[in-house]
Amino acid sequence: MIVGSVAGGNGGSRIRLRRLGVDTYQEAVVYMHRDCHVCHSEGFEAQSRVEVALNGRTIVATLNVVSGGFVSPDEAGLSEAAWRLLHANDGDVATLRHPPPLESLGHVRAKVYGRRLTPSAFAAIIRDVAAGRYSDLQLAAFVTACAGDHLDLEETVSLTRAMVDVGERMAWGPGMVLDKHSVGGLPGNRTTMLIVPVVAACGLRMPKTSSRAITSPAGTADTMETLAPVALDVPQIKHVVERTGGCIVWGGAVRLSPADDVLIRVERPLDLDSQGQLVASVLSKKAAAGATHVVIDMPVGPTAKVRSAQAAHELGRQLEQVGAALGLQVRVVTTDGLAPVGRGIGPALEARDVLAVLQRHPGAPADLALRSAYLAGPLLELGGAAPAGGGERLAMEVLGDGRAWAKFQEICEAQGGMRQPPVAPHRRAMPAPRSGCVVAIDNRRLARIAKLAGAPQSPSAGVDLHVQTGEFVERGQPLFTLHADSPGELAYAVEYAISQADTVHVTEDA
Amino acid sequence: MIVGSVAGGNGGSRIRLRRLGVDTYQEAVVYMHRDCHVCHSEGFEAQSRVEVALNGRTIVATLNVVSGGFVSPDEAGLSEAAWRLLHANDGDVATLRHPPPLESLGHVRAKVYGRRLTPSAFAAIIRDVAAGRYSDLQLAAFVTACAGDHLDLEETVSLTRAMVDVGERMAWGPGMVLDKHSVGGLPGNRTTMLIVPVVAACGLRMPKTSSRAITSPAGTADTMETLAPVALDVPQIKHVVERTGGCIVWGGAVRLSPADDVLIRVERPLDLDSQGQLVASVLSKKAAAGATHVVIDMPVGPTAKVRSAQAAHELGRQLEQVGAALGLQVRVVTTDGLAPVGRGIGPALEARDVLAVLQRHPGAPADLALRSAYLAGPLLELGGAAPAGGGERLAMEVLGDGRAWAKFQEICEAQGGMRQPPVAPHRRAMPAPRSGCVVAIDNRRLARIAKLAGAPQSPSAGVDLHVQTGEFVERGQPLFTLHADSPGELAYAVEYAISQADTVHVTEDA
Repeated sequence: MIVGSVAGGNGGSRIRLRRLGVDTYQEAVVYMHRDCHVCHSEGFEAQSRVEVALNGRTIVATLNVVSGGFVSPDEAGLSEAAWRLLHANDGDVATLRHPPPLESLGHVRAKVYGRRLTPSAFAAIIRDVAAGRYSDLQLAAFVTACAGDHLDLEETVSLTRAMVDVGERMAWGPGMVLDKHSVGGLPGNRTTMLIVPVVAACGLRMPKTSSRAITSPAGTADTMETLAPVALDVPQIKHVVERTGGCIVWGGAVRLSPADDVLIRVERPLDLDSQGQLVASVLSKKAAAGATHVVIDMPVGPTAKVRSAQAAHELGRQLEQVGAALGLQVRVVTTDGLAPVGRGIGPALEARDVLAVLQRHPGAPADLALRSAYLAGPLLELGGAAPAGGGERLAMEVLGDGRAWAKFQEICEAQGGMRQPPVAPHRRAMPAPRSGCVVAIDNRRLARIAKLAGAPQSPSAGVDLHVQTGEFVERGQPLFTLHADSPGELAYAVEYAISQADTVHVTEDA
Repeated sequence: MIVGSVAGGNGGSRIRLRRLGVDTYQEAVVYMHRDCHVCHSEGFEAQSRVEVALNGRTIVATLNVVSGGFVSPDEAGLSEAAWRLLHANDGDVATLRHPPPLESLGHVRAKVYGRRLTPSAFAAIIRDVAAGRYSDLQLAAFVTACAGDHLDLEETVSLTRAMVDVGERMAWGPGMVLDKHSVGGLPGNRTTMLIVPVVAACGLRMPKTSSRAITSPAGTADTMETLAPVALDVPQIKHVVERTGGCIVWGGAVRLSPADDVLIRVERPLDLDSQGQLVASVLSKKAAAGATHVVIDMPVGPTAKVRSAQAAHELGRQLEQVGAALGLQVRVVTTDGLAPVGRGIGPALEARDVLAVLQRHPGAPADLALRSAYLAGPLLELGGAAPAGGGERLAMEVLGDGRAWAKFQEICEAQGGMRQPPVAPHRRAMPAPRSGCVVAIDNRRLARIAKLAGAPQSPSAGVDLHVQTGEFVERGQPLFTLHADSPGELAYAVEYAISQADTVHVTEDA
């Protein structure tokens, strides 16, 4: 049965919607049966772009034609991304038609041909990108056309501005607003939860939005959430920052530089180096968040995103120049690219490490404290709380005398109340198979074990590492302990950990 | 329930397959429930690339994570493309694991950076493309990196060779093998069915593989199939050509330049001009088909793929030069870009037009005969059957004296027996709404009406056009007749035709 309406023409055809629950990684996909009359009357083909309109909202989705039984001919199934964008409810009747031509693709073609794009060309492209009018293939073409060194400084500024302009922008009134960013997404997550209270304790303002885990066992937002609420809206965030000078919240509730989220999704699997896009991505988020002074942590090393001092220098200069064009003062700090492992892997276990540093426990991970102070230092200098070269030392003092801990508690209370991180009911220690020296720790595998144990969905789940590279261990001494919410998840993680016996590699005796 | 096997590790995890019937336009997609243990144990994330191995066949698919009920946690659903590539049967148990790293993407990145690629770099990329190891995003990046004028002559030769090398190659023994191609996919389909018998009737060899309709109401293979079998395998094709000198068969059963099929799927929606890729696409198919002499029909005009004489000249020169490097003699013929409409739209109706020309009926469409002779001419000259400049005239003679008709019957018999095209049981004439002059005919809409009537799935369905632009008609005189297999399809097409009243536009009286 077709719901109402004449077939074809510009008015489109009406059809009932159904939620299919397919996570297409944010691509809007519409699934229609090959015998669906709307497909025929509108002339949709496999892979057509289809405009779906519902209650004043309009999206463009890619058509997948279905011959199996899970979509019937009188309904249109939607992927999760499409469902969310339309705010649809099961049984809603939407209007489907061909979308208008995507004029801004002409600018993408011009870029492919090596032409420079004007600010208005970038604005047109980014408006369409943020509105979801580009298919994944078209996004990949745009990303590729801008990759390498295909964007000059002016174009990068135009792209960054265009990205800021299509989203929300937080306003903080007069005065400095500090922020930090780590290039390349190396862990370092836990440093944020120490840097913010240090900076805020020195009387500076640092509203920090963070992400949840995408592929890791814990994002900063997941870890912070074991200690305080993080899903705050803009008025709540403002209230917290006004009261305490800082916050550590989840950025998902705030629509900052939404085009960046769309582009990153495509950039990640392509893994093309693109200095212009990296700069636009980082700075558009910071400008939209209302920052005025930004410290950028740039790990340099053979396994980091930035591999040489020369590359770091060039990228750093472009970040500073584009930042200046947007009214942002940017300071780039290169680090050694060796991420601190701390002890815990998983939200609650990582929160425990942070608390240990803040509470000045004797066994707190020193690497985490040092790295946090190293990055907080330049922020304190930029903010005028410390003289040039004196920031790191001040940060260590603030961590060491309890001021950071007091400020952290204050922030947690303002965000909705501090709480104790949960403790996993099921644990298993993995013993050293022999006596010897720990010669290597495979962090990638430890992360996978933590995820098998349930992190980050189970905040208490994860891996607690007891040894460091270079340490001598006795046979039978625990190398790490698995934490899980259920016996099943524990068994699952244990099975995998046993199959990967050299995750923490102890030398054979000679 | 998980089928057998230890979780994780390099051995992969085993899981039951299910056919979902989703046409993703040839992208291999695997749908797994978010609670599926294989996802967890292997560490697959949304949009992971997943290697699926079954009975010695291996494909790489993109993961869509499903939370809805149409895939259960103990099975992996496959898209039609994945199902076909694996030769799977419902309930088969496959092994899933992470695919090995895609080394050839490094060459794509180098191309993005503007470097020239070596023959072995193209070979590595094209091997992976043909094997389905590139995701759609990665394909789009490769296509974009090579678009515009980013490939020089040598690179285009390397790309073409690489594309030929990964597929089948037909061998015809010593002597010339003629072929033709039309750039830009304008209809012109029907000319092939006239050119082949003309050329073969002159003692030359012309084995022609054609495609089925993708978005049109009829491909050459669909039209030919109403007159004779076309789904022949390589030995059968050879037998037909040995006996008659020509054939008109479906190319789908022969795996010529399979990488081209993969790339075209992505190139089409991106619509990037890419001379190098166009040349590689056309010539790789021709070289793989064993052609030695090729005539290329290049329509030039404001609505054609090639828009100016200058562009036609450059593209033509590159086709000839790359052809020469591959041992192909290429001759480019520019045409006016106005596609012949003939009378019929739809497989059987188009076949009827072809037969009318071959059988020299008084009412046969003259434009179809003229255009076929215009393109057959250079083939006859290349093949030495006619002197320079005398090919078109010879072609007209062969069409006019019945030799082409005799040869066409011979070819049909050799392909399995000539038959009568079916006639639709349900028809409806659409009358002129007023007396006046036909000032415009909207071919795109006529094609859509033909598809609504059931073409090409119903070979007899389509539109029979009775008038031409510039003709005077009386009120009530039929402009075109709809043909359909069922009353429902007829009613559907009629409804649409009425809603689009000016598809054949007759002037208002002044």
